[in-house]
Amino acid sequence: MIIIMEPGASAEQVHDVEEEIRRIGLRPFLNPGVERKVIAVLGEVDVTKAALVGHFSMYAGVARVELISDLWKLCSRGYHPENSIVQVGDVAFGAEKIVVIAGPCSVESREQTLEIAEQVKEMGASLLRGGAFKPRSSPYSFQGLGEQGLKFLAEARERTGLPVVTEVMDTHEIVLVAEYADVLQIGARNMQNYSLLKAVGHSGRAVLLKRGMGSRVKDLLMSAEYILSEGNPDVILCERGITTFEDSTRNTTDINAIPVLKHWTHLPVVLDPSHSTGVWRYVAPVACAGVACGADGIIVEVHNDPQRAMSDGMQSLKYDNFKSLMSQVGRIAEAVGRTS
Amino acid sequence: MIIIMEPGASAEQVHDVEEEIRRIGLRPFLNPGVERKVIAVLGEVDVTKAALVGHFSMYAGVARVELISDLWKLCSRGYHPENSIVQVGDVAFGAEKIVVIAGPCSVESREQTLEIAEQVKEMGASLLRGGAFKPRSSPYSFQGLGEQGLKFLAEARERTGLPVVTEVMDTHEIVLVAEYADVLQIGARNMQNYSLLKAVGHSGRAVLLKRGMGSRVKDLLMSAEYILSEGNPDVILCERGITTFEDSTRNTTDINAIPVLKHWTHLPVVLDPSHSTGVWRYVAPVACAGVACGADGIIVEVHNDPQRAMSDGMQSLKYDNFKSLMSQVGRIAEAVGRTS
Amino acid sequence: MIIIMEPGASAEQVHDVEEEIRRIGLRPFLNPGVERKVIAVLGEVDVTKAALVGHFSMYAGVARVELISDLWKLCSRGYHPENSIVQVGDVAFGAEKIVVIAGPCSVESREQTLEIAEQVKEMGASLLRGGAFKPRSSPYSFQGLGEQGLKFLAEARERTGLPVVTEVMDTHEIVLVAEYADVLQIGARNMQNYSLLKAVGHSGRAVLLKRGMGSRVKDLLMSAEYILSEGNPDVILCERGITTFEDSTRNTTDINAIPVLKHWTHLPVVLDPSHSTGVWRYVAPVACAGVACGADGIIVEVHNDPQRAMSDGMQSLKYDNFKSLMSQVGRIAEAVGRTS
Amino acid sequence: MIIIMEPGASAEQVHDVEEEIRRIGLRPFLNPGVERKVIAVLGEVDVTKAALVGHFSMYAGVARVELISDLWKLCSRGYHPENSIVQVGDVAFGAEKIVVIAGPCSVESREQTLEIAEQVKEMGASLLRGGAFKPRSSPYSFQGLGEQGLKFLAEARERTGLPVVTEVMDTHEIVLVAEYADVLQIGARNMQNYSLLKAVGHSGRAVLLKRGMGSRVKDLLMSAEYILSEGNPDVILCERGITTFEDSTRNTTDINAIPVLKHWTHLPVVLDPSHSTGVWRYVAPVACAGVACGADGIIVEVHNDPQRAMSDGMQSLKYDNFKSLMSQVGRIAEAVGRTS
Repeated sequence: MIIIMEPGASAEQVHDVEEEIRRIGLRPFLNPGVERKVIAVLGEVDVTKAALVGHFSMYAGVARVELISDLWKLCSRGYHPENSIVQVGDVAFGAEKIVVIAGPCSVESREQTLEIAEQVKEMGASLLRGGAFKPRSSPYSFQGLGEQGLKFLAEARERTGLPVVTEVMDTHEIVLVAEYADVLQIGARNMQNYSLLKAVGHSGRAVLLKRGMGSRVKDLLMSAEYILSEGNPDVILCERGITTFEDSTRNTTDINAIPVLKHWTHLPVVLDPSHSTGVWRYVAPVACAGVACGADGIIVEVHNDPQRAMSDGMQSLKYDNFKSLMSQVGRIAEAVGRTS
Repeated sequence: MIIIMEPGASAEQVHDVEEEIRRIGLRPFLNPGVERKVIAVLGEVDVTKAALVGHFSMYAGVARVELISDLWKLCSRGYHPENSIVQVGDVAFGAEKIVVIAGPCSVESREQTLEIAEQVKEMGASLLRGGAFKPRSSPYSFQGLGEQGLKFLAEARERTGLPVVTEVMDTHEIVLVAEYADVLQIGARNMQNYSLLKAVGHSGRAVLLKRGMGSRVKDLLMSAEYILSEGNPDVILCERGITTFEDSTRNTTDINAIPVLKHWTHLPVVLDPSHSTGVWRYVAPVACAGVACGADGIIVEVHNDPQRAMSDGMQSLKYDNFKSLMSQVGRIAEAVGRTS
Repeated sequence: MIIIMEPGASAEQVHDVEEEIRRIGLRPFLNPGVERKVIAVLGEVDVTKAALVGHFSMYAGVARVELISDLWKLCSRGYHPENSIVQVGDVAFGAEKIVVIAGPCSVESREQTLEIAEQVKEMGASLLRGGAFKPRSSPYSFQGLGEQGLKFLAEARERTGLPVVTEVMDTHEIVLVAEYADVLQIGARNMQNYSLLKAVGHSGRAVLLKRGMGSRVKDLLMSAEYILSEGNPDVILCERGITTFEDSTRNTTDINAIPVLKHWTHLPVVLDPSHSTGVWRYVAPVACAGVACGADGIIVEVHNDPQRAMSDGMQSLKYDNFKSLMSQVGRIAEAVGRTS
Repeated sequence: MIIIMEPGASAEQVHDVEEEIRRIGLRPFLNPGVERKVIAVLGEVDVTKAALVGHFSMYAGVARVELISDLWKLCSRGYHPENSIVQVGDVAFGAEKIVVIAGPCSVESREQTLEIAEQVKEMGASLLRGGAFKPRSSPYSFQGLGEQGLKFLAEARERTGLPVVTEVMDTHEIVLVAEYADVLQIGARNMQNYSLLKAVGHSGRAVLLKRGMGSRVKDLLMSAEYILSEGNPDVILCERGITTFEDSTRNTTDINAIPVLKHWTHLPVVLDPSHSTGVWRYVAPVACAGVACGADGIIVEVHNDPQRAMSDGMQSLKYDNFKSLMSQVGRIAEAVGRTS
């Protein structure tokens, strides 16, 4: 249920409604929208929905009360009609500018991290990505440098000013990772790790939530709802390809998911063409496709020496290809009325 | 195996090589490229490939002989490095200009067909689409107007000058359909109807070959190879979505397939965002995505009254949405260095 | 709509109802069930369904009139509650006995065909399979022996008494193939070749309809409905695996489809574990799984020399493995109250 | 690499080889097989594999040294040719007897848990399942009773003697859940939660590892390898359906996965037909299919009042259906030479 306040509703009126919601055992979520305030009401009580609608309709300052039939509430465009802006330092996800996140798959060394950070910064990236804790399908593959890797990322941020996005794989590690990172990434394999989702809901950090390779768009929104309902509104959704029968690429980019998500939710959406194709040659065209159909940003793997990368070398861009991608994305951004 | 002739090879030298190919029981396919001629050699004989390579390398005018490891030969970039241009009247598929094919899903009446044709022509479409023979999953659904529908399409072409694309479902109907249509469409459900593929290889008409919803990119190319190997080089490939577990859209647009196809083959590639999304709201953004990543054109369903359409109403665009799509696609075309 | 007659309804009463159905422009399909007769009514007229139900409820001998909400009518359990028996010579599909169809993927020579036929006959197979017209994804692969292959199959039938199942790929070939074959197979790639479906509806032969690898169970039933609605009730459905992301087998056997089909339709259902796994080692266990969950039969590839087979060698059984499969299937058949 | 000892190798010889493996910086895993001992060698050192093979071939008691090309080592049939038996109390997974795990989806109350436990015990189940911590796609759905639920399960075990299988969702909860449960279940959504996999590797409890709905068979084995390589050999694999385009059932049972897994690995494999079909009506036939093709057990949802179940009611069996399933499974077990 959402309660839509009148344009001129006073802070006191909003407060009264919130108090009443709490009094009867429900939870209010205030969307402090520019034009008008909307309060989402979560939880269940032993009263019919019609009775609740009737009850809250009588309060001063309330314009109308609506039921939301979507399974997700706080993610819904009904609750929050405007695009949400997720602010990370100077960078705004969901605003006019297309945000580019770039960096190596894994943090491999101090030198590698600093060099790549400086290069992608110079070429126009807005954030640095890099994995310190790596979810690898084999226990015998390189598992990441752990805290040492986080330190290299933090040093790279200090030098370049780029905020850092890095993955967190376990509730135990959240405090540690949040100490160094600006954005916590939830990997595709953990998209339905509900304990982790709840925990990052209290982390005080923005979250980049990647879609699971076997998960529906609906499930992605439900997972985002876990984070939002714990009180963290700063969620960035990421399409990174799904598993299908097609085998010419590592995954199948579900490009439809971009306009579907932009239609259903107010949260910013980015595309990861590196994982969704798995082949460096297709990264730039698919990145352009994403921006053309409404993505708010892209996240790409860039490496100084892809052939010797400790993970995902085949899908990582060399500097010159990344530079070329930046200029292509810039032209597409302009064509759809955005900046880059 | 392909035989690459020297830039200055004479017509006689080419002829000698072709004769020798035939003499030993194989079939030559000459690609009369601008820079240099390439001859594909198809069939099997009881000689090692190394011997064949050696033999033809000795001929005058031959620059080099190469084996093609792809399953497809005539479709391959190795055989035909430049983009193929498929010419339909004044329209060139695979050239600089993004080609837009538009029209109703089914031809329903003379008035409807003429009206839609005139509208889409005015808004910038280059070809008219419309189904007279309809492959419907239920035998009780509207099956199309048949030859009467073909006549309406031909009349619409006469009035507007737009060449006509329409589906052919059976070898029996090819002569009839080819009498009225400029481009024969092979529907997704018939992509591996090999009898039909061979038959359109002799139809004297360009073919729009739609990818099957359960078929790999490789299978699409093999199906195209059937048509080319019968002597018809005018094949336009069409991505129209694949079946996956995702259910927020009718199919999943395999956007990766566009750059993969452009990398593997010289044939023109178009995208059908109407079927690949199944929801009118997502047609324009996904069309833009297709053009942004290299498609040579799009094919979209437009209807004067989508809610009363006899098929596919939910995914058909109204005129104003089509008009808006044309202008969006135009801006993206420009951003990727093409025209519209 | 279906009209269920009273148990003792006379032939004249049934006739009257059929006449009235025709008179108002609809088509009657009589299911001459043992306990009671049911008439399916197909087509559309300009009268409400309620009016039709009311109208026919008044006829003498009519027990009740029901609307069928399924998309398929003649395939439905509502129209035909008992299992349909499709009789091919002495063999009954859908009866107590599990039917085993066996033979080579392709007919390669007279000797091969006769030898395999005699062997599988001796080991207990009830029908012989073998392809004379082969749908191959590459135009350069072996395309089958054509009519010569049909003659070898017919000779094998003469010698062994095994009825013959073979594929028909094009409407042109139906008369030819029907001259030699007992059961016409529609391959997976042609499951939605509606022209072909309609044509085999008039062939006078039983049809083995294979599910397309990208098609839903619902679509398979709709394709069967095409054949039934042309007047041919002798359709055997075949699950042969679907395309999914799993790559340890050639296709994914959709074992759920067996009980789903047995619940939704009265038509017999067989499983093709050779194609649904693509690996000979898994053919026997998956055949057993099919019988355990309700399949009426299986169709398996057997070859005298799998490593030199001209197609599908990897998934073909040697004689000793086929023999062992027959005894395993026999034990499972007994465990589920059937014979073999 | 695996080192296969001679049949009569002494304990001292085995010890010497293990010591040498450790000395050069690798990890030995001893498979104390009945016929002969095999030592898997994990880790990486700066020596060629050929050198390692040569080095260990010289040791006394070593029969031969082999490289394993599979990505998984400890899961492999090469390392452990016989079936592994995972013992849970009196129950042996992977032995002759088909193990049936049954119980409600969620633990809802003390009465419900005790009643269902007693009923399924009486009907022949060997273990009790029930969720106390529930991974629900919506944060607003019932999340389970938590520790209180664990206590009810433990009480049910006390009364019936049935060991308890229950899910653990987070590394934090392992100690708590292990206190009450006999088998820790890793749910499909956590199959690639590598932190959790490593942690249950130290839990001292057997682990039931469910396949992720978007995961390949290979990935399931790699996830099992995480647990084994932490020193816990007691892993039971569970096929529970994958996501595909087919929508007549909740998931698609990948029945092929059963023989594939039994071929590739020595670990016991069970099937969950409740989740893999999602419809109670198809649970029994698909359970039979699983046993027919080699599964070592099944896990099914049984509820005293499915229509009022707090989760998964549609796929839960009533008592009488479960009773009938037990007898069907028993007959199939016998048909494949096993007991129940």
